[in-house]
Amino acid sequence: MNIPFSNLPRLVIIGGGFAGVALARKMIKEPVQLVLIDRHNYHTFQPLLYQVSTSSLEPDSIAYPLRKIVKRGKNTFFRMAEVASIDPDTQKIHTNIGSISYDYLVIATGARTNFFGNTTIENNAMRMKNLPQALNLRSLMLENLEQAVITTDPEKRKELLSFVLAGAGPTGVELAGGIAELKLNVLPKDYPDMDFSEMEIHLIEGAPRILPPMSEHASKKATKFLENLGVHIHLNTQVKNYENDLVTTNTDLSIRSATFIWSAGVTGAPVSGIKSESLIPRANRYKVNQCNQIEGYTNVFAIGDISVMETKEYPRGHPMVAQPAIQQGEHLAKNLKRHLKGKTMTPFKYFDKGSMATIGRNKAVVDIGKFKFGGFFAWFIWMFIHLWFLVGFRNRFVTFFNWTYNYINYDKAARLIVRPFKNDNGSTERV
Amino acid sequence: MNIPFSNLPRLVIIGGGFAGVALARKMIKEPVQLVLIDRHNYHTFQPLLYQVSTSSLEPDSIAYPLRKIVKRGKNTFFRMAEVASIDPDTQKIHTNIGSISYDYLVIATGARTNFFGNTTIENNAMRMKNLPQALNLRSLMLENLEQAVITTDPEKRKELLSFVLAGAGPTGVELAGGIAELKLNVLPKDYPDMDFSEMEIHLIEGAPRILPPMSEHASKKATKFLENLGVHIHLNTQVKNYENDLVTTNTDLSIRSATFIWSAGVTGAPVSGIKSESLIPRANRYKVNQCNQIEGYTNVFAIGDISVMETKEYPRGHPMVAQPAIQQGEHLAKNLKRHLKGKTMTPFKYFDKGSMATIGRNKAVVDIGKFKFGGFFAWFIWMFIHLWFLVGFRNRFVTFFNWTYNYINYDKAARLIVRPFKNDNGSTERV
Repeated sequence: MNIPFSNLPRLVIIGGGFAGVALARKMIKEPVQLVLIDRHNYHTFQPLLYQVSTSSLEPDSIAYPLRKIVKRGKNTFFRMAEVASIDPDTQKIHTNIGSISYDYLVIATGARTNFFGNTTIENNAMRMKNLPQALNLRSLMLENLEQAVITTDPEKRKELLSFVLAGAGPTGVELAGGIAELKLNVLPKDYPDMDFSEMEIHLIEGAPRILPPMSEHASKKATKFLENLGVHIHLNTQVKNYENDLVTTNTDLSIRSATFIWSAGVTGAPVSGIKSESLIPRANRYKVNQCNQIEGYTNVFAIGDISVMETKEYPRGHPMVAQPAIQQGEHLAKNLKRHLKGKTMTPFKYFDKGSMATIGRNKAVVDIGKFKFGGFFAWFIWMFIHLWFLVGFRNRFVTFFNWTYNYINYDKAARLIVRPFKNDNGSTERV
Repeated sequence: MNIPFSNLPRLVIIGGGFAGVALARKMIKEPVQLVLIDRHNYHTFQPLLYQVSTSSLEPDSIAYPLRKIVKRGKNTFFRMAEVASIDPDTQKIHTNIGSISYDYLVIATGARTNFFGNTTIENNAMRMKNLPQALNLRSLMLENLEQAVITTDPEKRKELLSFVLAGAGPTGVELAGGIAELKLNVLPKDYPDMDFSEMEIHLIEGAPRILPPMSEHASKKATKFLENLGVHIHLNTQVKNYENDLVTTNTDLSIRSATFIWSAGVTGAPVSGIKSESLIPRANRYKVNQCNQIEGYTNVFAIGDISVMETKEYPRGHPMVAQPAIQQGEHLAKNLKRHLKGKTMTPFKYFDKGSMATIGRNKAVVDIGKFKFGGFFAWFIWMFIHLWFLVGFRNRFVTFFNWTYNYINYDKAARLIVRPFKNDNGSTERV
């Protein structure tokens, strides 16, 4: 892979998400040769992807060139590559741009959308786990609106104006809220010749309440917010199929819709070569010990969404969100520094800073320990924290400006159709 | 096309570029039913496309939703469509979303890249006349750098680090300057393990000087600026072919290059249906009279790059840049208003506000009448005017911020590879 020879031990990190970047940043000045590998040349701030899809933010504001992160160190290297496999016996990884040996390997490949084996849904649904997908979704929604405005067939128009989301976790809830705000504040101005009472947003959730990972209080508040925005919530309902623009479920609910978004689950994105006993089959994630070492290995680690660290408090692993990923990355950095100095590693302890979801203008829900609240103050905290964690002054500033602009003007200004991107399955058709 | 019936005369504008938008804005409150048609849902500020390609600005800063422009009027409609043909006899236009009749038709379809019939170059070269093309170019340049850093074959690396531009009009000059600044200020920080003395930028021009439409003074200044930035300028040289990464010319110059950008000419983008006598074959542009009426028609107009208004001062038509387009659009609005009031139309008179090109940081050239100057002051004026003409407060603000940020930090921060877009010829291969 053309990495210069060095006497330093080589640390290879696969994945430039929250976990990989947190680790890389802390290791840049340490006595290792650091190689960060990602298939994109940028880090994506996933919690704001839904704002790209709903035309609030431009993609460049929530992405950050990975080379800007690693360039601060002399012994750091970034390589844009797809990892094909790992060979722990020879301590090598194989990629589309060649092979490389490692002394320490950290797998931080994160998660991808889980279709639970339903290939029809996989082929037809929109998803939103990375920037091209978020831009595809933005473009499809705007294209369907352009179609709707010229359609004289009322059935077809209803279909084009129906937005269906499967899965009411934070992604589904935030997307539903964002689309509802487009409907209320932006689109009627853009399409004065269209009747937006025909536009419907459906949020379908298998559990008995939305935002299942959050508190009952947050669920209730968010439900109220969404209902006030006109979102139809269907609980205890599972989407069974999506074909020929028809969403069908396990109840008698079925909806014709040209925009169906699947946010009903994620699964790990493991790399081949790690022994199968270390992988939790159902979750596709690696079992790690308290030091993030993958079971059965001492110099191969997993952090973030791809890892499952079973603890008393979190018997099925930590939540698959940014905070555990960042904290595991930072903790592993500490442990690697200790290890390089000949000290023993210390167990990871997750500090739960709370969780939150935003529904729209002045509307968010926050759970921090015992404090559970929703509304303007929660929304304000949500904004502040998301700005804080965005990487780079430029991104923070442009995002802050766009939010302020959108807030004052009841606008979402990044409404460009720029297409087509390649879909996950390789086609450029529609998605 | 599903436009509501109206008693008002219908004005259809094809194209939301500078000319079409200038006209539309002035006609919004007039007693016409206005229909603006474009194949994109946004207006592109073409003079700054090169800054998208060279990672200075995000695409959303130089684009503006066309619906935001037309929504200010009650009788205005936007339709995203590709026009297939015009039938002046029945006063109808036919598009991919249906047909529509008109009382007044304005063709403002602009220009596209001219390959002068060389299909090999057309299939292999990059171009930059719209946003997807600009983003493709940005991605290709960054991808080639990622390739270069892992290449051990010195010949191959040289090829990946060679950037060749055919045509030294404003686009070629500004792109060459932008790439040279990436080389000097940005890339060495991003790729500490690459030797950027190997990176070459070649600007090839058939005329005996660069910036042929500008003054001798501007040419000289710009030449000096570019040479100081390390750009190789080849005058009196025509590119003959580009195949298998080899650029060949009509001299003994040939260069191996993985990034070849064709900016050596534009040609009109006419619509079928207008009688061929009204089209200037060499230029593919419509002959119009002083009132922008296409020769042989009274209610069909052409404005901007697609029109050629032969005058004493401009025997081959006005320059194909933003100013004549804007002025023709605004003048035609005045004439249509006069016509609607039963008054006769007045001839267009072009007010030449001057021309300018920027080469880089503190470096631009300006011709305003007798005043011809270059350097910091010219660069400052260039920035001010481009900000002024950008549509929308948000775009101006974000652009201003990004320029300030880039200036202070010697940075160009929008370095994301987001691919693939569809190429003009429909393929998603490489470009």
